[in-house]
Amino acid sequence: MYEVKVKIGLKKGISDPEGKNTLKALHLLGFKNVKEVKTIRTIDLMIDGRNKGEVQKSVEQMCQRLLTNPVIHNYEIKIKEK
Amino acid sequence: MYEVKVKIGLKKGISDPEGKNTLKALHLLGFKNVKEVKTIRTIDLMIDGRNKGEVQKSVEQMCQRLLTNPVIHNYEIKIKEK
Repeated sequence: MYEVKVKIGLKKGISDPEGKNTLKALHLLGFKNVKEVKTIRTIDLMIDGRNKGEVQKSVEQMCQRLLTNPVIHNYEIKIKEK
Repeated sequence: MYEVKVKIGLKKGISDPEGKNTLKALHLLGFKNVKEVKTIRTIDLMIDGRNKGEVQKSVEQMCQRLLTNPVIHNYEIKIKEK
């Protein structure tokens, strides 16, 4: 069994409305010392597979087909054997 | 300046509908080897502060007041000086 972490962030130049709104709300609450807010999603998967290479390939396909939008997202895959 | 990462997950026993739907969709796409899916949000903040302790305290307040829902979320704060 493999534990896979897919970290999904936004590409450079793509605006992050959730981050911007969080920053605005924090300022309204008085946290004026916050200068920047970015949001990142991580998806943790438990996957059955014969080897790391096969799992990597399969997760890349999942990212392309469902987990991310390749037009706006960057992603990073980390695999650990369990 | 401090770089702060707040990792927000769900407490044990709280259901993760996004994870469950992602798992279902992956199975429909043919990725039958996926056994479990969990989603985690990370918020990256850049904060001005005099010292790490002060930043930690301020981020704890942000988590309680805005960033998380303490009823259902667990959170983890990591602080790095930049």
